[in-house]
Amino acid sequence: VGVSVRVATGEPAQARSVRDREGSEIEFSRVVAFSDGVFAIAITLLVLALEIPVGVDDLGQELRDRGSEFFAYGLSFAVIGSLWIDHHRFFGVLKGFDGRLMALNLVYLAFVALVPFSSSLLGSYASQSPAVIVYAINMVAISVTFTLQIEYARRAGLVEPGSEYDAGLTAESIVIPAVFAVSIPIALEVPGETPYVWLAIPILMRIIDARRRRLSRGG
Amino acid sequence: VGVSVRVATGEPAQARSVRDREGSEIEFSRVVAFSDGVFAIAITLLVLALEIPVGVDDLGQELRDRGSEFFAYGLSFAVIGSLWIDHHRFFGVLKGFDGRLMALNLVYLAFVALVPFSSSLLGSYASQSPAVIVYAINMVAISVTFTLQIEYARRAGLVEPGSEYDAGLTAESIVIPAVFAVSIPIALEVPGETPYVWLAIPILMRIIDARRRRLSRGG
Amino acid sequence: VGVSVRVATGEPAQARSVRDREGSEIEFSRVVAFSDGVFAIAITLLVLALEIPVGVDDLGQELRDRGSEFFAYGLSFAVIGSLWIDHHRFFGVLKGFDGRLMALNLVYLAFVALVPFSSSLLGSYASQSPAVIVYAINMVAISVTFTLQIEYARRAGLVEPGSEYDAGLTAESIVIPAVFAVSIPIALEVPGETPYVWLAIPILMRIIDARRRRLSRGG
Amino acid sequence: VGVSVRVATGEPAQARSVRDREGSEIEFSRVVAFSDGVFAIAITLLVLALEIPVGVDDLGQELRDRGSEFFAYGLSFAVIGSLWIDHHRFFGVLKGFDGRLMALNLVYLAFVALVPFSSSLLGSYASQSPAVIVYAINMVAISVTFTLQIEYARRAGLVEPGSEYDAGLTAESIVIPAVFAVSIPIALEVPGETPYVWLAIPILMRIIDARRRRLSRGG
Repeated sequence: VGVSVRVATGEPAQARSVRDREGSEIEFSRVVAFSDGVFAIAITLLVLALEIPVGVDDLGQELRDRGSEFFAYGLSFAVIGSLWIDHHRFFGVLKGFDGRLMALNLVYLAFVALVPFSSSLLGSYASQSPAVIVYAINMVAISVTFTLQIEYARRAGLVEPGSEYDAGLTAESIVIPAVFAVSIPIALEVPGETPYVWLAIPILMRIIDARRRRLSRGG
Repeated sequence: VGVSVRVATGEPAQARSVRDREGSEIEFSRVVAFSDGVFAIAITLLVLALEIPVGVDDLGQELRDRGSEFFAYGLSFAVIGSLWIDHHRFFGVLKGFDGRLMALNLVYLAFVALVPFSSSLLGSYASQSPAVIVYAINMVAISVTFTLQIEYARRAGLVEPGSEYDAGLTAESIVIPAVFAVSIPIALEVPGETPYVWLAIPILMRIIDARRRRLSRGG
Repeated sequence: VGVSVRVATGEPAQARSVRDREGSEIEFSRVVAFSDGVFAIAITLLVLALEIPVGVDDLGQELRDRGSEFFAYGLSFAVIGSLWIDHHRFFGVLKGFDGRLMALNLVYLAFVALVPFSSSLLGSYASQSPAVIVYAINMVAISVTFTLQIEYARRAGLVEPGSEYDAGLTAESIVIPAVFAVSIPIALEVPGETPYVWLAIPILMRIIDARRRRLSRGG
Repeated sequence: VGVSVRVATGEPAQARSVRDREGSEIEFSRVVAFSDGVFAIAITLLVLALEIPVGVDDLGQELRDRGSEFFAYGLSFAVIGSLWIDHHRFFGVLKGFDGRLMALNLVYLAFVALVPFSSSLLGSYASQSPAVIVYAINMVAISVTFTLQIEYARRAGLVEPGSEYDAGLTAESIVIPAVFAVSIPIALEVPGETPYVWLAIPILMRIIDARRRRLSRGG
């Protein structure tokens, strides 16, 4: 809230108008570079969750016991990498941006930058409900704020006409938050098995994609 | 001080002359990229203040008890994000830069890069005066060094004529340091409630902005 | 696996086609910038493995006792630096990229971003087999995923014809994983001496290079 | 050593030739961006040396007792900032680069990326000789490897003729390593006062600069 208010009101009228992508390539690329920086830093900070054992006798056993830390590292690297690719594609069809989109992007990035924390929590407490729930909530928050960006840009006419993001909510944008939201009550009962529920996401994505291709071939 | 002396005196005469933005686009963009890098890293390092509990029985309770850490994360993400947007806008109207502006920018960045520390302190000791005061002082230092940059650039003729930064001190540049400075004595008495005082900033910003728009419509 | 599935299937048909480097310079440069960011952050995070002693009487002795931490820092800085140069050269001859290459690149980067962990482990437990083996496995994984990228790009016709990466597997791409793989059983017996085995890599590289130059002179 | 051997020998003959700056702007800018990334990350990691007190009664007193940590932060921010400006100027007059210069640049960056460690050591043990000596050695290593880069580039004809770096060793490049080298034996006796010796650097710089300007006016 703080950011959106600040950004939306702190700008003089002329600066709030939509900036054309061609006309101010430097400014647009600076927003992209800043976002990419946050993605790259967050993805690389994931490694800090892998703690170095201190004063351990059987180092091999100790490392094997930390399987869930390595699992959380791999999962979160895949998550942030996928988010970056999606962000990459979305910004690729933007014709311009305004202060409000920049603010929404910042709120989105705040949840992306939180992943090293929730990933570390998941790695350390993989069998406890609160850790799994925090991870799922973080994912829902990321999905929702990303969808908000797309919807805002679409309605404000900032998306290139005819591009994939011009058609409104896609099946993909619903699958991710829905699966994570559904997994929250499950995590209250069987936290250790909840990540298997998340596997539904790539499977559903594959089905949606196969169907879409069949349709586009049919057309 | 060290930096400004070093930069101001260590450069041969020809290098100290104003560099034109068009003429040396690479060099200008390198300063911008460096500043953006510091912003992106500082904003992403905020997450390291969220510590992973060690050997905790009731993880859910533990996380709820750390509400002030999450509050500090959100607040500081909004703060650094807003600072970056302002920096973005200021550099957007710069015609060029010289060694002294680069030095002032470095001093400013030193205070921006300090935010992960003062934010972490605020998150851990939200109810103790010294933590709140350190945060407020950090904000005052950032505001003052940003205003110094603008004022220097304006007097040195480095700002595009007619741009918003060409008109001297704006109401915004006074509101932020003033509210934080006023909050310091308050933090000595009621540190836990001081952040509510800071809420005056977005409210005052909104008022200033509404008034300006009324004026520009009137003209 | 998660990433490759997500990326390979989540893209609509038109986006999966090969993107020409010239035609979408911004998108190509964004992938490059993201990769460079991960390299730069991982190489700079290595310093966090050098712990500051706490409450030590003889600081000089303490620092001398940590020789292996400084060795691991230097070794891993050289390793990540070399990897970056190789990546730099490979991307220099790419004509374009597609979703699958982007996914392979992400898996590769996940192992590069892991180096600060395995380097820190090596620095702290230089004389214990598991630490040396983890380091060697990390290096094998990096080499293999880098070779997979090259092979995929070559077969998909994404490499500039006649460039060094157009000729299939080179001696270099076999030397690095082979030496590290061979060193794993050695590390089970004499972990402290295993890094000397790794010295075979620069020596073999020098021999291969001298031979190639003799051949190219002969032709 | 590892890096320079690897880079110098691992490249096929055609890649080792000097790359012209104009001809391969992307590659040149990638080296610059990587170096800038390391500078920006190292300078922002300095904040991690400022530890958050744990379980402290008098937080204000605790923070005042850590004056040397804040001093080390400010000093090292000024140092890395100055190094970045110098690197910026040097790369600004480069006509091209080759593998060996890239390797020298990496060794230089390895010492720059070490500053967060030696700075943290200095902040925690400001009154102990080993900490002050490690800091001084780090500075000498940075100065020497920077001078090696300049000298190599000059001899290899990579520097623009007539530029400030075309004239051989300058007074500045001798002052910094000399003062830090001289301070090492002093740190054995009076470590706490050694930073005052370092103040000679900005003073000498100012004298050299004033003299040069007098000469250039005279000519």
